[in-house]
Amino acid sequence: MHSFTDLVISFEKRFTETLPFSESPATLYDPCRYLLQLGGKRVRPVLCLMANELFGEIADDAYRAAAGIELFHNFTLIHDDILDQSPLRRGQPTVHAKYGLTSGILCGDVMCIYSYEQIAGINRSLQQVMQVFNRTAIEVCEGQQLDMDFEQRNDVAMAEYLHMITLKTSVLLACSLKMGAITGGALGDNANKLYEFGKNMGIAFQLQDDYLDAFGENSGKQLGGDIKANKKTFLLLSTLEHADDKQRAEIDLLLRHDNENKVQDMLSLFKATGANIACRRAVEHYSGLAFECLDNVAVPGKRKEPLYELASYLLMRDK
Amino acid sequence: MHSFTDLVISFEKRFTETLPFSESPATLYDPCRYLLQLGGKRVRPVLCLMANELFGEIADDAYRAAAGIELFHNFTLIHDDILDQSPLRRGQPTVHAKYGLTSGILCGDVMCIYSYEQIAGINRSLQQVMQVFNRTAIEVCEGQQLDMDFEQRNDVAMAEYLHMITLKTSVLLACSLKMGAITGGALGDNANKLYEFGKNMGIAFQLQDDYLDAFGENSGKQLGGDIKANKKTFLLLSTLEHADDKQRAEIDLLLRHDNENKVQDMLSLFKATGANIACRRAVEHYSGLAFECLDNVAVPGKRKEPLYELASYLLMRDK
Repeated sequence: MHSFTDLVISFEKRFTETLPFSESPATLYDPCRYLLQLGGKRVRPVLCLMANELFGEIADDAYRAAAGIELFHNFTLIHDDILDQSPLRRGQPTVHAKYGLTSGILCGDVMCIYSYEQIAGINRSLQQVMQVFNRTAIEVCEGQQLDMDFEQRNDVAMAEYLHMITLKTSVLLACSLKMGAITGGALGDNANKLYEFGKNMGIAFQLQDDYLDAFGENSGKQLGGDIKANKKTFLLLSTLEHADDKQRAEIDLLLRHDNENKVQDMLSLFKATGANIACRRAVEHYSGLAFECLDNVAVPGKRKEPLYELASYLLMRDK
Repeated sequence: MHSFTDLVISFEKRFTETLPFSESPATLYDPCRYLLQLGGKRVRPVLCLMANELFGEIADDAYRAAAGIELFHNFTLIHDDILDQSPLRRGQPTVHAKYGLTSGILCGDVMCIYSYEQIAGINRSLQQVMQVFNRTAIEVCEGQQLDMDFEQRNDVAMAEYLHMITLKTSVLLACSLKMGAITGGALGDNANKLYEFGKNMGIAFQLQDDYLDAFGENSGKQLGGDIKANKKTFLLLSTLEHADDKQRAEIDLLLRHDNENKVQDMLSLFKATGANIACRRAVEHYSGLAFECLDNVAVPGKRKEPLYELASYLLMRDK
């Protein structure tokens, strides 16, 4: 079995060597190359390769699936950065900030198509792979749309929020695992359990991200970014759910007016309503579900070790 | 064999009945539905169905391919309208004009993915179909990029222009025919000849469009739109190629300054340099190539009649 680091290296090598972008038109492909060389953790392709290795030697098909997923993920980053008007990604200018809006749109489009080109090269169970990939790709767009819709709404329910982060973030992790499983010849039940493992892990990861943005003193992050941006995170929605009238009035005021104590005041409200504890519990809940699904994948435990390790690392917990 | 009208009706019926957009999020799918109900001639799906019928009864796979192609075409319209900042399409507000930029981007993205969902449902020769579709989709993006690049350049050569319109317009017509042929079980040679038929027909059609924009008194079009927009059409590039120094100076002046006689003056230059005749000849040349390719498709002549008729109608000429 290969470790995360092994697989990142072998994915990167193959991904870079087989990248199919032409030289011309440079105006189209330079922005594509620019984004890909910004790097990234390559979690999705590695999940795909790990899931594939559960069932035997890593197949060529799994590398194709992994490349397709990574290209798709990068396509969504390009367009999401336009939708969110983000100037920076990984500390560097975003594609549209560097090359302009029209280049951002078109280079995202072509990268999406290149992701399908990789996937079309898969030999084993192509139709089944395409089915899960298409469904996921559609859900990712729906998740992004819901996220934008929520910015305009003040009545987002917790269940809606969980649904949105599932679509926007989790299903692509789940899909990576399932595509790895299918191209490894996994039976339906194992493939589905890996999908559920990825989905729950993704939700736990996103909720942990919400938590760390507020309380992650040791995470090296700038704290309070979500609070300053009035983002409807688990913490804010949970606080709104459990606030009394006085607290609700305070929240409304904080959301409407910026003041220098906004972050501190909001953090106090999170704690006073128990949202911080609810969030930790939710992370534990979805992490637990994730590990349970992985436990139930019917392959020898030894084979699953790299996936347990990666999940534990991402969710910062002991197995 | 079925006529164009028959096939439009049967495509429309099936396309509308099987459209897979969910109700929700309406913010994502309403713009998709809006664009599709604006209509269009459905030339591409009909070409696909006609090519399929050359080889037997129209297959379910051909309807899936046709739907995929039509969705892909509409996806490119949505994003091209953003890139070109067009306010109107078919006399109605474009998607981004009606629903905003972010909706335009995201609804284009999801429509592109839905086009792949249709194609993934194809049973016969899926991998071969995906290969031609992906190659084409990439070329369409490249063509759109080149078109935008040309707006910024003053040294576009005729060969570059022909390459650009081939990618931007022709290859999708060619691909429609080839996908119809493949899903009909055509041998490689027939499929390739149909591809070349579509490609040359597309080039001829675009050059005819350039001609009609300047000289189409009876076409019902507003004349001179390309001239007013300084578009680098076949006519302008041919004029620049054959102009003497004095004429070139006149052209430069017309390109830099708008004056009320711009259209008339440019038309005079088109005629004086013989660009109008060169354009007619080029239309004839590519039409000739197109019909030659169709002649050589090895199926009984009677079966090819609907394609001859459609091409003759599009290229306004006698078979």
